[in-house]
Amino acid sequence: MNAEIISIGSEHLLGEIIDTDTPYLAKRLTEIGIEVEREITVGDDEKDIASSLEEALRRVKMVITIGGLGPTPDDITKKVIAKAVEEQLILNEEILSEIEGKFKEERKPMPSDNIKQAFLPRDSHPLKNRVGIAPGFILETRNRIIIALPGPYNELVPMFEEETLPYLKERFKVREVIKSLILRTTGLLESKVAEKLKDIMKRSKNPQVFLLAHENIVDIRLIAKAGDEKIAEKLNTGIEKRISKRLGNYIFGTSKQTLEEVVGYLLYMRKKTIAVAESCTGGLISHRLTNVPGSSNYFLGSVVAYNNRIKRDRLGVKKTTLEKYGAVSERVALEMAKGIKKIARSDFGLGITGIAGPTGATEEKPIGLVYIALAHKNKIEVKEFKFRGARGVIKAKAANTALNMVRRHLLK
Amino acid sequence: MNAEIISIGSEHLLGEIIDTDTPYLAKRLTEIGIEVEREITVGDDEKDIASSLEEALRRVKMVITIGGLGPTPDDITKKVIAKAVEEQLILNEEILSEIEGKFKEERKPMPSDNIKQAFLPRDSHPLKNRVGIAPGFILETRNRIIIALPGPYNELVPMFEEETLPYLKERFKVREVIKSLILRTTGLLESKVAEKLKDIMKRSKNPQVFLLAHENIVDIRLIAKAGDEKIAEKLNTGIEKRISKRLGNYIFGTSKQTLEEVVGYLLYMRKKTIAVAESCTGGLISHRLTNVPGSSNYFLGSVVAYNNRIKRDRLGVKKTTLEKYGAVSERVALEMAKGIKKIARSDFGLGITGIAGPTGATEEKPIGLVYIALAHKNKIEVKEFKFRGARGVIKAKAANTALNMVRRHLLK
Repeated sequence: MNAEIISIGSEHLLGEIIDTDTPYLAKRLTEIGIEVEREITVGDDEKDIASSLEEALRRVKMVITIGGLGPTPDDITKKVIAKAVEEQLILNEEILSEIEGKFKEERKPMPSDNIKQAFLPRDSHPLKNRVGIAPGFILETRNRIIIALPGPYNELVPMFEEETLPYLKERFKVREVIKSLILRTTGLLESKVAEKLKDIMKRSKNPQVFLLAHENIVDIRLIAKAGDEKIAEKLNTGIEKRISKRLGNYIFGTSKQTLEEVVGYLLYMRKKTIAVAESCTGGLISHRLTNVPGSSNYFLGSVVAYNNRIKRDRLGVKKTTLEKYGAVSERVALEMAKGIKKIARSDFGLGITGIAGPTGATEEKPIGLVYIALAHKNKIEVKEFKFRGARGVIKAKAANTALNMVRRHLLK
Repeated sequence: MNAEIISIGSEHLLGEIIDTDTPYLAKRLTEIGIEVEREITVGDDEKDIASSLEEALRRVKMVITIGGLGPTPDDITKKVIAKAVEEQLILNEEILSEIEGKFKEERKPMPSDNIKQAFLPRDSHPLKNRVGIAPGFILETRNRIIIALPGPYNELVPMFEEETLPYLKERFKVREVIKSLILRTTGLLESKVAEKLKDIMKRSKNPQVFLLAHENIVDIRLIAKAGDEKIAEKLNTGIEKRISKRLGNYIFGTSKQTLEEVVGYLLYMRKKTIAVAESCTGGLISHRLTNVPGSSNYFLGSVVAYNNRIKRDRLGVKKTTLEKYGAVSERVALEMAKGIKKIARSDFGLGITGIAGPTGATEEKPIGLVYIALAHKNKIEVKEFKFRGARGVIKAKAANTALNMVRRHLLK
């Protein structure tokens, strides 16, 4: 079973609204094995709605429209659907009395315009609107299924969950199920991941394998289709094992797991604590670590040392080191990591210094140059990085890389 | 001039991602008088991309594609475009050396797959990618304009603003213009703002007035339409003045200005410095302050004191205060603010302590209880708040409220 979603409303084409209806429906349909092949947004224009509807009906078995069910003259979805499939709109008495009831409840007279909302295509199955006024419907005709839903998210969701989904589940035996699995990696460029998985990505049709990269994290998404959930999951697991073998520890988690959650989990399991000395990341690493509930178990605190005097006074970075090597240097990162570890009496001390830009660069020290040091017991490792991007991107890449250094150390 | 936007990527059809690229483009195109007539989302399927592209090219003069410009085998946008308009993809030497340069800069070898990204349709105008790797292009052929942009939002926006828009503006003349103006407020509930602006919101048709609230910030959005930019701006300014009069200092900025930018600007203008002692916000305030370029001029640093010992040792919070009042108390916030001010030798010291949840609440101290103190010279103000929401929301509300306290103090 394949479907298209048509979102109707000129306001969408102005870009003032973020459409959450369509992703919601796409996700729910995918989960019951209905494959969304295309999503279309058109304005409140009869010709545009009609052409997109007719094209969609030629391509797929199920078309879902969103919006255009209100009482005003620009709400013409029902009219266009009726015309496209050559059906009449007829008054549904039950729906009419329900609409009248809603106005009575609010002790308001029903405007005559609202009568229009009680007209539905002949032989359609009405979908009640628990939250608002506009009813939707399911129309089965000419071997096609058309579902019309209202635009407001808080009306659409209950109408879909409570009225539409049960109908679809009963009407069609849910056979095909789609299961997705995300493997999250960091430490490799997207093109490097692609290179390592080239043959798998090319050959594996079920699950299909996609990559999505952002700020030094590359997500590998597996999407499997099968007759039931277990088989779909098994298909994913099969490919997951092969990918895991190749990428090993570059994979840090699955699905929506974040690096900070994984680092937090590892610290918690190993009963270790951490403290952070941040310069160019400016508090981002601490912010991310403390986004995890329960982080107070292992995160002791941090010093954001933007100012050199704070690096000296608060972290014990030597004045001579600052003078000789400059604030952005391997040596300063090293002393920051050692300093915060000592001060916080933590097991791990993480030190980050760098140039986030747009100013502050010199000839030898370009924007994006970052040093990250990790102190543990009497050992310390320090690495140099060169990140590309705007200020925010460099901060994010440095934070991801620093968290990954902690993770890799904890995995040893 | 009319346009359609085609967003390419199977991940979108699973509903896992909210598309912000399309609304952004729709808004910007609308503003320069290009009417978006349809938005389409298709998967990484050659047939689907080709059919949607060909249909769009029949209907409108301009088609913009988003995504599918990466190095991996499922990135096929360029191939499909070239085929649809019967053009060849040829190697662009300038773009190639630019891509090579980017890898050199990060001191990494360029994987062979990336060469693919330097191939562009013959006679197309290349669009440079300042943030990522994938270049875009503008192709004018057969009385049609095809613009290909990359999927990641942080790459698409600068490529559109800096490379595409100037090209379009020069190439086409602009008529109806839509101008929006956002007035950003904090310190008032959305319903309170709505009450204060009730009559304006109801009566003003041009500009239209909308509210949008998130994490204790309420944005007032004015949208004006006119024959040219100046008139549209004047329409907005008229209403802006009336709103400003009613809301006064609750308005902290316009458009995309953030609280941290405004606070930073005020600190900079008054030649004052700040340092922060964070507990429940866990580094978020420092992160936000340091997101602003040039923040090293006024932000000295911070201590994130998650652990009580760090509150004592690093901030000078008295042991007796912690024992008598608890870590989440007016007194501790006060001592944190004073402590960080003294330690950092800053003009302002900001101290925040609270319970972000989901654990840590007691009968007297519920989740969302937050104390914020601001020390300046020998004075100190401290306030108690009770924020509703999940951990991340409470952190964000506390950060906004703390930044607003600094702002209001600087406006005195």
